[in-house]
Amino acid sequence: MPKVGILMGSRSDLDVMREASKILDDFEVSHEMKVISAHRTPERARDYSLTAEKRGLQVIIAGAGAAAHLAGFLAAHTILPIIGVPLDGSPLKGFDALLSTVQMPGGVPVASMAIGKAGARNAALFAVQILSRGDADLVAKLNLYKQQMRAEIEAMEI
Amino acid sequence: MPKVGILMGSRSDLDVMREASKILDDFEVSHEMKVISAHRTPERARDYSLTAEKRGLQVIIAGAGAAAHLAGFLAAHTILPIIGVPLDGSPLKGFDALLSTVQMPGGVPVASMAIGKAGARNAALFAVQILSRGDADLVAKLNLYKQQMRAEIEAMEI
Amino acid sequence: MPKVGILMGSRSDLDVMREASKILDDFEVSHEMKVISAHRTPERARDYSLTAEKRGLQVIIAGAGAAAHLAGFLAAHTILPIIGVPLDGSPLKGFDALLSTVQMPGGVPVASMAIGKAGARNAALFAVQILSRGDADLVAKLNLYKQQMRAEIEAMEI
Amino acid sequence: MPKVGILMGSRSDLDVMREASKILDDFEVSHEMKVISAHRTPERARDYSLTAEKRGLQVIIAGAGAAAHLAGFLAAHTILPIIGVPLDGSPLKGFDALLSTVQMPGGVPVASMAIGKAGARNAALFAVQILSRGDADLVAKLNLYKQQMRAEIEAMEI
Amino acid sequence: MPKVGILMGSRSDLDVMREASKILDDFEVSHEMKVISAHRTPERARDYSLTAEKRGLQVIIAGAGAAAHLAGFLAAHTILPIIGVPLDGSPLKGFDALLSTVQMPGGVPVASMAIGKAGARNAALFAVQILSRGDADLVAKLNLYKQQMRAEIEAMEI
Amino acid sequence: MPKVGILMGSRSDLDVMREASKILDDFEVSHEMKVISAHRTPERARDYSLTAEKRGLQVIIAGAGAAAHLAGFLAAHTILPIIGVPLDGSPLKGFDALLSTVQMPGGVPVASMAIGKAGARNAALFAVQILSRGDADLVAKLNLYKQQMRAEIEAMEI
Amino acid sequence: MPKVGILMGSRSDLDVMREASKILDDFEVSHEMKVISAHRTPERARDYSLTAEKRGLQVIIAGAGAAAHLAGFLAAHTILPIIGVPLDGSPLKGFDALLSTVQMPGGVPVASMAIGKAGARNAALFAVQILSRGDADLVAKLNLYKQQMRAEIEAMEI
Amino acid sequence: MPKVGILMGSRSDLDVMREASKILDDFEVSHEMKVISAHRTPERARDYSLTAEKRGLQVIIAGAGAAAHLAGFLAAHTILPIIGVPLDGSPLKGFDALLSTVQMPGGVPVASMAIGKAGARNAALFAVQILSRGDADLVAKLNLYKQQMRAEIEAMEI
Repeated sequence: MPKVGILMGSRSDLDVMREASKILDDFEVSHEMKVISAHRTPERARDYSLTAEKRGLQVIIAGAGAAAHLAGFLAAHTILPIIGVPLDGSPLKGFDALLSTVQMPGGVPVASMAIGKAGARNAALFAVQILSRGDADLVAKLNLYKQQMRAEIEAMEI
Repeated sequence: MPKVGILMGSRSDLDVMREASKILDDFEVSHEMKVISAHRTPERARDYSLTAEKRGLQVIIAGAGAAAHLAGFLAAHTILPIIGVPLDGSPLKGFDALLSTVQMPGGVPVASMAIGKAGARNAALFAVQILSRGDADLVAKLNLYKQQMRAEIEAMEI
Repeated sequence: MPKVGILMGSRSDLDVMREASKILDDFEVSHEMKVISAHRTPERARDYSLTAEKRGLQVIIAGAGAAAHLAGFLAAHTILPIIGVPLDGSPLKGFDALLSTVQMPGGVPVASMAIGKAGARNAALFAVQILSRGDADLVAKLNLYKQQMRAEIEAMEI
Repeated sequence: MPKVGILMGSRSDLDVMREASKILDDFEVSHEMKVISAHRTPERARDYSLTAEKRGLQVIIAGAGAAAHLAGFLAAHTILPIIGVPLDGSPLKGFDALLSTVQMPGGVPVASMAIGKAGARNAALFAVQILSRGDADLVAKLNLYKQQMRAEIEAMEI
Repeated sequence: MPKVGILMGSRSDLDVMREASKILDDFEVSHEMKVISAHRTPERARDYSLTAEKRGLQVIIAGAGAAAHLAGFLAAHTILPIIGVPLDGSPLKGFDALLSTVQMPGGVPVASMAIGKAGARNAALFAVQILSRGDADLVAKLNLYKQQMRAEIEAMEI
Repeated sequence: MPKVGILMGSRSDLDVMREASKILDDFEVSHEMKVISAHRTPERARDYSLTAEKRGLQVIIAGAGAAAHLAGFLAAHTILPIIGVPLDGSPLKGFDALLSTVQMPGGVPVASMAIGKAGARNAALFAVQILSRGDADLVAKLNLYKQQMRAEIEAMEI
Repeated sequence: MPKVGILMGSRSDLDVMREASKILDDFEVSHEMKVISAHRTPERARDYSLTAEKRGLQVIIAGAGAAAHLAGFLAAHTILPIIGVPLDGSPLKGFDALLSTVQMPGGVPVASMAIGKAGARNAALFAVQILSRGDADLVAKLNLYKQQMRAEIEAMEI
Repeated sequence: MPKVGILMGSRSDLDVMREASKILDDFEVSHEMKVISAHRTPERARDYSLTAEKRGLQVIIAGAGAAAHLAGFLAAHTILPIIGVPLDGSPLKGFDALLSTVQMPGGVPVASMAIGKAGARNAALFAVQILSRGDADLVAKLNLYKQQMRAEIEAMEI
């Protein structure tokens, strides 16, 4: 039973959202990836979010571009933490997706990450951070990740 | 049975959205106004849009601010024409609402109007234009409206 | 006699605006496509809009870039519903066209769609939605379209 | 017979556009002010621009807010120099009006000034600069104006 | 021992950030509020984040305006989930704070909320959602909160 | 003795600014092109503008990118009409150049055109419009140009 | 003989720029304040910058709004470090001034600070930092300033 | 012992930041280049800035993209002058990095340069200008640089 759901509004978003999946693989966090659109498959998005908690999901990551409503749609239907990844999928370069994702009204939070791949990676890391609140093993892995990232940069010479 | 539904995400939007209602009153087009939020009352928004066509609604106008998903949410659930009015309800002055309303993905159209009161008025006029496609009386009223608007400006002296 | 007119400010916009034409073909809605510029052929634009209603047109779709005035120009001259498609045709990536199209003053509505191809497709769908108000056959086709779109996404596997 | 026409899309723009009129008064340049809207009185705007040259007008100044099409509309119909003044008349603070005014397509120039009162004043000064090309008296007055402006600032003490 | 830390870069941010505190009070989640600035008290910010986990904090909420680095600074020093609230504290209306908060590089996530009070409220709710992953009582309270919010809007009449 | 000066801040702007030169060639208006930078050769820019009127120049066109000060610099030193062309020469795509060119303070007008090639072409046309105020031959040519532009578009078939 | 010059384009900028003066007073750094405009008093601006070094000035701070060219103008004429303060003096809220100040071409640096009062204060502090490179007394004062700022925030209780 | 430190948040920024190094080489100013990230190696960034003054550094240049906190982070820890170079490293084209770099709160100045290579070059030149305050040789070199830049542009023919 997956703990994290990674949803994206269109199959063309897979290249970016796979970054989230890779991070979760690295942390050995079970997850599933699905194409679900708030605008094109609203019933499926509703079902997914209404049943998510019962199915054992702990966090949902939603990537979408343009008028990116997916994360907000999910947040409207569940009390699970929703992480939004704005995608660069229109001439406005993800700026539209960022505002559509982050400017949620009071009462229905979405945690927005950066536009694009950096955001997808961070969405996964943030999901791990959430899960780590009850899991000492993940805390250890997060500390190791931070350490390795630091070491990698410190090894860079110019 | 109302032909036009005017929805708004919050009661604080009423001052702006009433502009739409006034125009519809002027054109004697039956309508209803309701506070329905895509994020805070998603089931109500879903029910409204899923049953709208059957209840005889012909057009729905949706005003919302910030990450304004209401119009897009409705459009996802019905084939009725949805008109979105972005509202100036966050520090970003409606710019966020505009992009959230207008940048819809292919397949699920929302007709976006201008931010704020001008947009609310035009949403109503556009609803009348849609209804006028099968109603010669509304065509006449629209022509009269255009004439009066013109006359009013032409009467302005400096 | 075409029901929908698709206008564009320049022949270079054809690649994008043909997306609207394809959708109308799919819905078997008669239409015509023309290059008419509000700035370079204003008399032609005026004639087109002043005679549109009499010639049987029901909706006009106008695509333009930069200081995109075409949709607003048409709306000034007719009571037919005008749908504007902002095009990505300047270094500002359609952002200028979007504001020029959507920020219409009260009294003269233009229904703005998203920038570029998504907007062109949605303009056609919105035109069909308008026409469907008096045409049960189009309602059926719109429902089928929505169904197929949903099925297509639901069939996507990762 | 006025040499400069000052047009504005709405009577509410008068407060700003009167700045242009004051400058022309200072330079003793004959002018007229009118409320003419590209969207609400297009025929009047067309007549004004089509007959402007014959009536002896040399330059037209057009102030408008939001989707500010007035200057571009005039430029489409006449070969007279058109000066556009974007006005701060929507929640977007004149940013929409600026892009709608300045981003004209090749072939139909509009000379855009700054948003608001500074722009209105400069529109008048620019009109005087144009007229000065055949008028030594205006050249002298422009030089004097520049001198006085300089002296005024140099007299400021802190 | 508080579970949530609410930090703000300046005492003038208290009016906004108290919204977060009120929500946590409603959910009976222990928390502390402190003025800590990434730029003016970096050592204090460092100490706070380096010791946060040991002191039993589970989530940190950081509100800051302009070049809002506080949330990112904290995220650099701890593996606890950091929630950023961009504040409207410069002429750019929080737009600068939003980009400074949300556009974090891959590897160091910050969960950005909306600009201002809506964001502060949602930061607290999101913190509760995180804590609810191991606390059935908070799940119940979140469901009740959602229900009450819905009921409140449904009770609105026009 | 040239009537129009075309200046540009860098030789790399030549590709765009040559569009202005071509139009002036078409209208047989004498002109010169020079690389002069407000920031890198300020004395040359000063000399050019201070002596421009005496040397018989009637209009100056200035193209510059980024913090595009060239047009404003010239306008500060001469009462000749200055036309600014913002160029797309930084990651901000000419948006910076546009604001630097158009937002001139009251008292020192610059006539801003669109960003890039369309702007360069229109700068030349606007210069011709200015010169046409005392030159019936240019009026005739401008009318012909407008006619040909119209005919060209009307000949486009789809 | 003052070490720092504080220039501003208009007397109305005094309220903001006095913040810089106050900081320099606190650090006992001699300075002068003058109203000098790149656009309205270019010769004075040129003289000021060409003679600044000889007169013993070490740093110049320039505050300006809208198409804020003052800092860049000075930088074009002197090798002294120029610090620019973009001011919120147009409907675009200082956003235009920021881009006009910061986006300088390679070869002519301007050090841009934040928009408005925070920027004016920091301009003075940055000037002190520059002067401190050869002045141990200023280093001590800067360390004290940082200490006091820290203490002030740490004393804040909620 | 280097006088200038050039830091960058990621090795991928080297191509841009090397422009700064080249300029310092031309001026024979000793310097070092390092990859140090405010977010990924905060302790290293802290150590670097806390010890910079003692190690004899006079100026630090920091290049970073997206939520570019590096320059501000350094400025929080040292009284040395910090020059920030916003980099074009996200879909928002450096616009995010610009605001994150320049909009610093009062008390902690960062001198922001333009986005990208022009900014990197100017950061180095500005560092030289700072160092030149106590070094007549650098003054002479800066004057020569300005002269050569001028000569180079004046030699350009069209």
